[in-house]
Amino acid sequence: MTAHIINIGDELLIGQVVNTNASWMAEELNKRNIKVTNISVISDGADDIRTQLDRSLSEADVVLITGGLGPTKDDITKTVLCNYFDDTLVRHQPTYDNVKKFFDRRGLPFTEINQAQALVPSKCKVILNEVGTAPCMVFTIPQATFKQPSPKKTDTSVEKIVISMPGVPFEMKWLMQNSVLPLLEEQLGSQAIVHKTILTFGIGESFLADKIADWEDALPAHIKLAYLPEAGKVRLRLSAYGEDKAKLEQEVAEQIVELNVIISDNIYGYDDDTISKVIGKIVNRRCALLATAESCTGGLIGNMITEVPGSSAYYKGGIIAYSNELKERLLGVRHETLEQYGAVSEETAIEMAKGCLEATGADYAIATTGISGPTGATEEKPLGLVYVAIASRDEVVCNRYVFTTTRQQHQQRTANQALFDLYKLLTKNC
Amino acid sequence: MTAHIINIGDELLIGQVVNTNASWMAEELNKRNIKVTNISVISDGADDIRTQLDRSLSEADVVLITGGLGPTKDDITKTVLCNYFDDTLVRHQPTYDNVKKFFDRRGLPFTEINQAQALVPSKCKVILNEVGTAPCMVFTIPQATFKQPSPKKTDTSVEKIVISMPGVPFEMKWLMQNSVLPLLEEQLGSQAIVHKTILTFGIGESFLADKIADWEDALPAHIKLAYLPEAGKVRLRLSAYGEDKAKLEQEVAEQIVELNVIISDNIYGYDDDTISKVIGKIVNRRCALLATAESCTGGLIGNMITEVPGSSAYYKGGIIAYSNELKERLLGVRHETLEQYGAVSEETAIEMAKGCLEATGADYAIATTGISGPTGATEEKPLGLVYVAIASRDEVVCNRYVFTTTRQQHQQRTANQALFDLYKLLTKNC
Repeated sequence: MTAHIINIGDELLIGQVVNTNASWMAEELNKRNIKVTNISVISDGADDIRTQLDRSLSEADVVLITGGLGPTKDDITKTVLCNYFDDTLVRHQPTYDNVKKFFDRRGLPFTEINQAQALVPSKCKVILNEVGTAPCMVFTIPQATFKQPSPKKTDTSVEKIVISMPGVPFEMKWLMQNSVLPLLEEQLGSQAIVHKTILTFGIGESFLADKIADWEDALPAHIKLAYLPEAGKVRLRLSAYGEDKAKLEQEVAEQIVELNVIISDNIYGYDDDTISKVIGKIVNRRCALLATAESCTGGLIGNMITEVPGSSAYYKGGIIAYSNELKERLLGVRHETLEQYGAVSEETAIEMAKGCLEATGADYAIATTGISGPTGATEEKPLGLVYVAIASRDEVVCNRYVFTTTRQQHQQRTANQALFDLYKLLTKNC
Repeated sequence: MTAHIINIGDELLIGQVVNTNASWMAEELNKRNIKVTNISVISDGADDIRTQLDRSLSEADVVLITGGLGPTKDDITKTVLCNYFDDTLVRHQPTYDNVKKFFDRRGLPFTEINQAQALVPSKCKVILNEVGTAPCMVFTIPQATFKQPSPKKTDTSVEKIVISMPGVPFEMKWLMQNSVLPLLEEQLGSQAIVHKTILTFGIGESFLADKIADWEDALPAHIKLAYLPEAGKVRLRLSAYGEDKAKLEQEVAEQIVELNVIISDNIYGYDDDTISKVIGKIVNRRCALLATAESCTGGLIGNMITEVPGSSAYYKGGIIAYSNELKERLLGVRHETLEQYGAVSEETAIEMAKGCLEATGADYAIATTGISGPTGATEEKPLGLVYVAIASRDEVVCNRYVFTTTRQQHQQRTANQALFDLYKLLTKNC
């Protein structure tokens, strides 16, 4: 099954808004084995919408449209679709009630222009938008009625489907997850799909591919592997296609067991895990407490840890020791250490981590000190140099890294690496 | 002048990568009065590229293409363009030398496949890509040779231009800024354009629009205003079009003086300023020092301050007092205050800010304490409640806010607000 995505809206064409809707939709469709062959951003213009509809209906099985459904007169998607399908607008009572409730609850007048939100083409199927006011409309078209007589590249066994959704990201996502994706899955028939994402760190994409080449080559044809690289991390996505969902889940689980034999040191989680969440679970399970002592990352690690709901159970807090004075005053780094080795050194990082345990009473501490740039480098200490120290009650480990990149990316890479280093210490005897 | 953007690449169609190239390009083109009428994402397929070229050349004056220029065989943009324009590939010596240098510097072999990067269609103009290996190619086409005989919606006084660039964002941006945008500006002829962005905070888009309505209505026809809203901030962009750049700059400057009379309290900067940069400049100019005491923001404010290069000159560091224990131990918040008023209270925020000055020796301190959710709310203290205290050597101010949003957005909104609150204190007697 192939799909086109059409995003309607001038705010996308003037670059005011990044089109995150398209990538989110494409990823969700791709996961379900629906191939997106085109993404088009067009204006709120009747001609543009009609031209694009002609084209998409001639090339794809499913056309997903976002945007242009607001109540103001520059939003014309609904009217254009109604004319395109030779239909007339009628009131959809559940949408009318929903929109009325929406305005009543806010104490706002339910004006005529807002009542028009409840008008829909008579022949479409309406999906109630419970998180907004614009309804989602599904048009199903028998092959025979296409305006373009010679569809190409399409699967002729199914009807064509056009689905119009609001452009507000959370409304679109709610409608996709609750109704549109299940509807498309139904169209795909009895096919079952199982996905599992394996999260790895500390190994680049090409080295990872080399390391798991034999395992990858031995994957059965109905299980596909995708590499999804990000800064310092690679996600591996296994997608299994077949008839029997339970059987597929079993097969994927077995493949992951095999994969773990090869790269267990590089796997830190699955699916929606983040390194902060994974660390939080381990520390919390041990009834232990965590603290941070950050220089070059300036608070980013603390922020990443506290993005996890419930992190107050195991994160005591930390010290942003950006100046040498605070390294001494709040973390007890010795003046001689700073004089002799400098702020960016293994010795300082270790004293920061130990001092952090002392100052906060935590069981584990993360310390960072480095040169994020653009200035501060010397002959011996290059731009991007960073020391990460991890301390527990029993030991301290310190690693040296050089990340040559922009200032902001340096902070991000260092923070990720520091959390991975803590993860390694936490799991090394498990 | 109208433009189409074509982004080629399967990674965009499977949703692995968000298309930030398109929005960046669209914004830059729009600033120069070039109207983007279509953005299309297509696969690395010869048919798809040709079909889209036909369409874009019939509808737009300029076609900007990114992607598909890598050395591997799945990258076919160059070959397709060469065939499309009935041309043959020849070696471009400056590109050859550039690519060779690139591989030599890294000690990598300069293989045949990499040498092919220096082959270009003979009739195109080549722009040397000094930050990568794939060259930028400019094709200029007289109207007469279009494959589509009836161009519509276009300005027939200019030739058509097709420009192919690599998809790597920093390479594309470098080429756009250094060559492609100047080239397009030249095409536009004598037209001068001046832009100025005014950064405001603390007032919503509709209230701002009301407040400046008279000023906006009185703008001359050749000066346009755009509202660019973001979380808690609105950017206003003035664009002036005419013949004489110096005169336009003068006119825009005068408009900004008038605008300042109306909303000076809400303006914190211009163009590429950020609130962290603006604060940094003020604090640095006073030879003063800044510190932070963060609870609910978990280090985010420190991170935002240290994203600014040179921030070590005025940012001493801070304390992430996530637990009550650290609020007492490191910031000297009194146990009784926490007992009587709770951690999320005006009293605690004020003691945190004062204690932060004490603990760090700074001249200004920012303190935050709030309920980011999803749990932790009570009858009296709703989800999203936050207290922000700002202390100088002379005074402390504390504000109460309620931001009802997700955990991460709550941290972001609070951090922005805290920096704005400090800005207000720093500038109130200026």
